[in-house]
Amino acid sequence: MNPSEFSPAHFRWEFAGGVATITLNRPERKNPLTFESYAELRDTFRALKHAPDVKTVIITGAGGNFCSGGDVHEIIGPLTRMNTAELLTFTTMTGDLVKAMRGCPQPIVAAVEGVCAGAGAIMAMASDLRLAAPDAKTAFLFTRVGLSGADMGACAILPRIIGHGRAAELLFTGRSFDAVEGERWGFFSRIVDDVQAEALSLATSLATGPTFAHAMTKRMLDAEWNVSIDAAIDMEAAAQAECMRTRDFSRAYEAFAAKRHPVFEGN
Amino acid sequence: MNPSEFSPAHFRWEFAGGVATITLNRPERKNPLTFESYAELRDTFRALKHAPDVKTVIITGAGGNFCSGGDVHEIIGPLTRMNTAELLTFTTMTGDLVKAMRGCPQPIVAAVEGVCAGAGAIMAMASDLRLAAPDAKTAFLFTRVGLSGADMGACAILPRIIGHGRAAELLFTGRSFDAVEGERWGFFSRIVDDVQAEALSLATSLATGPTFAHAMTKRMLDAEWNVSIDAAIDMEAAAQAECMRTRDFSRAYEAFAAKRHPVFEGN
Amino acid sequence: MNPSEFSPAHFRWEFAGGVATITLNRPERKNPLTFESYAELRDTFRALKHAPDVKTVIITGAGGNFCSGGDVHEIIGPLTRMNTAELLTFTTMTGDLVKAMRGCPQPIVAAVEGVCAGAGAIMAMASDLRLAAPDAKTAFLFTRVGLSGADMGACAILPRIIGHGRAAELLFTGRSFDAVEGERWGFFSRIVDDVQAEALSLATSLATGPTFAHAMTKRMLDAEWNVSIDAAIDMEAAAQAECMRTRDFSRAYEAFAAKRHPVFEGN
Repeated sequence: MNPSEFSPAHFRWEFAGGVATITLNRPERKNPLTFESYAELRDTFRALKHAPDVKTVIITGAGGNFCSGGDVHEIIGPLTRMNTAELLTFTTMTGDLVKAMRGCPQPIVAAVEGVCAGAGAIMAMASDLRLAAPDAKTAFLFTRVGLSGADMGACAILPRIIGHGRAAELLFTGRSFDAVEGERWGFFSRIVDDVQAEALSLATSLATGPTFAHAMTKRMLDAEWNVSIDAAIDMEAAAQAECMRTRDFSRAYEAFAAKRHPVFEGN
Repeated sequence: MNPSEFSPAHFRWEFAGGVATITLNRPERKNPLTFESYAELRDTFRALKHAPDVKTVIITGAGGNFCSGGDVHEIIGPLTRMNTAELLTFTTMTGDLVKAMRGCPQPIVAAVEGVCAGAGAIMAMASDLRLAAPDAKTAFLFTRVGLSGADMGACAILPRIIGHGRAAELLFTGRSFDAVEGERWGFFSRIVDDVQAEALSLATSLATGPTFAHAMTKRMLDAEWNVSIDAAIDMEAAAQAECMRTRDFSRAYEAFAAKRHPVFEGN
Repeated sequence: MNPSEFSPAHFRWEFAGGVATITLNRPERKNPLTFESYAELRDTFRALKHAPDVKTVIITGAGGNFCSGGDVHEIIGPLTRMNTAELLTFTTMTGDLVKAMRGCPQPIVAAVEGVCAGAGAIMAMASDLRLAAPDAKTAFLFTRVGLSGADMGACAILPRIIGHGRAAELLFTGRSFDAVEGERWGFFSRIVDDVQAEALSLATSLATGPTFAHAMTKRMLDAEWNVSIDAAIDMEAAAQAECMRTRDFSRAYEAFAAKRHPVFEGN
C-alpha cells in the first residue's frame, strides 16, 4: 500500500504527517456499512500491516455521525435469505475486519460523534483509543434485530473494556449509552467538543512517538489476553528487551541528558 | 421441569409470562441458605436448562433482604466438624450452584435489597444482571468467618465485573459496599426504588426478546472468558451465523420493513 | 529470613506486629531504583515466601514520594550500551520482582504519595491493595523514554485493574493520572490524607485476620486469571475446603456463638 496514493471506493482516505484518516462517508444514511465497505475496510487494515509510513490511524464518520452499522436494506435483508454457509462467510468477513484492526501495528483512534451503532459500535470497540463528542450515542443493538451479542468479538472484548456486568447489560438489552456513561465506564478516554480535531491531535502525538514501541504495546496488550501472569511477565521481558535495542531508546536518553525533547523515528 | 407446577420446598417459585421468580423466603433470618436450599437451588437451575417455557429468571429475597448467606447454625457449625472429604462435597455442591446458574440458557436478573452477604453476594455475582434497591448492602465476607475469598468462583468472576483491585479489596477485607459504590463499579446496572417491580419489567422485556439469541449471548460471554481474541472472533462468527438462521432474525427484518415492532418467538 | 534482624542495603525495613514495611529511601531523588535495589527487592519478596512471621507487607517511599522508577543515570544510561543478552537479563530481573511480589503469600499494601512513575507505578500495580495520598501522581511513562508499555507485566495486569481502554490510553500516551482518577478507575481503593498511617492500619487489620485464608485468596486471584469459569469454580472448591480445615474457621464460629470477636492465628 502506498498511503499517499491509496484511493478506496467505499470510504474517504486522507494521509498526512504519518496519520491516516478513514472517514465513513454516506452521511445521508449515517454512514452504514455494506458488504463492499466491510470488505474494503478489512483489506485496508490488512494492508496497513505493510505500510510503515502510516504511524497511526483515525477512524471516524462524516456528517456528524460515526456509523449506523450494517445497512438494513443492503445487508440485513440479503442475510435473511442466505443459507448457513453463506452466512458463515459473512460473519467470518466481519470478524476478519476486527482481526485486521487488532492485527495492524498502528494504534487506531476512533473519533465518535452522533450515532455509533451495531457494527459501528464494534469498530469503535476494536480501536485502541476512543474519543467521544458530547452527543455520541453508542449501541450494541444486535438483540434488537433478533441476533446475539456474540458479534465480531463483542462478548470477549467489551467485558475487558467496561467490565462483565455492564457488557452483559448492553448486549442483552441492546440499549444505547451516552458519552458521559461511556467515559465513566472507560469506553471513552475523554469527551471533547471537537472530536475530529482532538483525535487528530492525539493521533499526531502518537505518530511522533516511538512507533516501534507502540506497535509492541498494541501487540502485547492482545497477546497477553489469556496467558498466566508469569507467562505474561516472561513475554514482556523479551518484548521490552527488544525495544531497548531500538535507537529511539537511545534518542530518549540522549535528549534527556542534553535537556531537550527527544525526536523519535520509530526504529 | 414443568414451570407451572413446580413447587420447591425451600424457596418460593412463581412463573408467569415466561419469567420465573425465585424468592428466598426465610425473612425472619434474612433468608439464609441451608444444605437443603443450596441443593434445591442447584437442582432447579440445572432443570432450567430443559425448561424452554422459562425465558428469564429473577432471583430475590423476601422481607426486604436478599440473602444473608450460609446459615451460621445450620451450615457453619456443622462444617467445623466435618472431615476433608465431607467439606469438599459441600464446596463442590455450592460451586455447582454457580455452574448451574451460568449453565442455564436464561438470563438471570438479581433483584437485590437490604442484606446481600456471603453466598448471597455470590448468587448476585453469578447472575447476569443485577439491580439494587437504595439500601442494598453487599459483602463478600468470607474472611470474617476465617475463610478465603476463593468461594464459589469469586476470585475469577468478581474481578471481571468490578476490576481486580476492587475485588481484591473486598475479598481481603470482607467489607460491605452500598448501592452507590456498586453502581459506580459496574456491579449493579441501576439503583431503583422498587427493585422487585423493575426486575420484573427488565426480565419481562428480555423474555419477549429473541431468547435463542439471548441464550447464545450468555453462553458466549462465558465461553470466551479465557480464549485468545482471534479464537473468540472465530467462535462468534459461528455463533452469530447460527442466530441468523433463526426466524427471529427474519421477524425483526420484516417488522422493520413494515414499520412495526417485531414479535420474537425465541426460534 | 528473620524479619526482626533483616537489614537490607538499599531500602529501609521495619517489622512490627506482623507487618513489614519497605520504604524506598533516596528521597532527594524521589526514590529511584538501581540495579542493586531491584535485585534486593526481588530477593526480599522471594524470601518473604519463607517468612511466616510476616503477615502483611507495606511498600512506600520516603520524603513524600513513592518512587520515580529506574534511575536515568544509573539504569537507563547503562542499558543503552548493553547487548541483547544483557538487556534480557535486566528485563528478566525486573519481571522477577513482579513475580516475587505476586508469589509471596502476604497481601502487599502500596502507600502511594507524590511521584509514582515507571517501575514505581509497576510496583504499585503489582501490589494487592493501593492507597493514595491526595497528591499521588502515577505514570506508566515507558513510551516517554522510547519503550513499550510491555514492561514487567503491565499489558496483562493493568487492564485487569482499570479496564483495557484506560490501560491502553495510559500505556500509549505515558500520561500521568491523579488520585481522583485512580480511585474512580479502581486503581486506588481510597484517597486518604495520611497514607502511611492508613496503610499501617489496613495492613495491621489484615495481619490480625485469617492469614492462611488471605494467602489462599491472593494465590487464587492470580491462579484463576486465565482458566475457564468451571475450572475456577473447581479450584475454589478445593481451596475453600482446605481453609475450612483451619482452626481459624472454628475460631470464627466459636467466637460468633460466644458473641465475641474472633482472634485469628493464621492456621
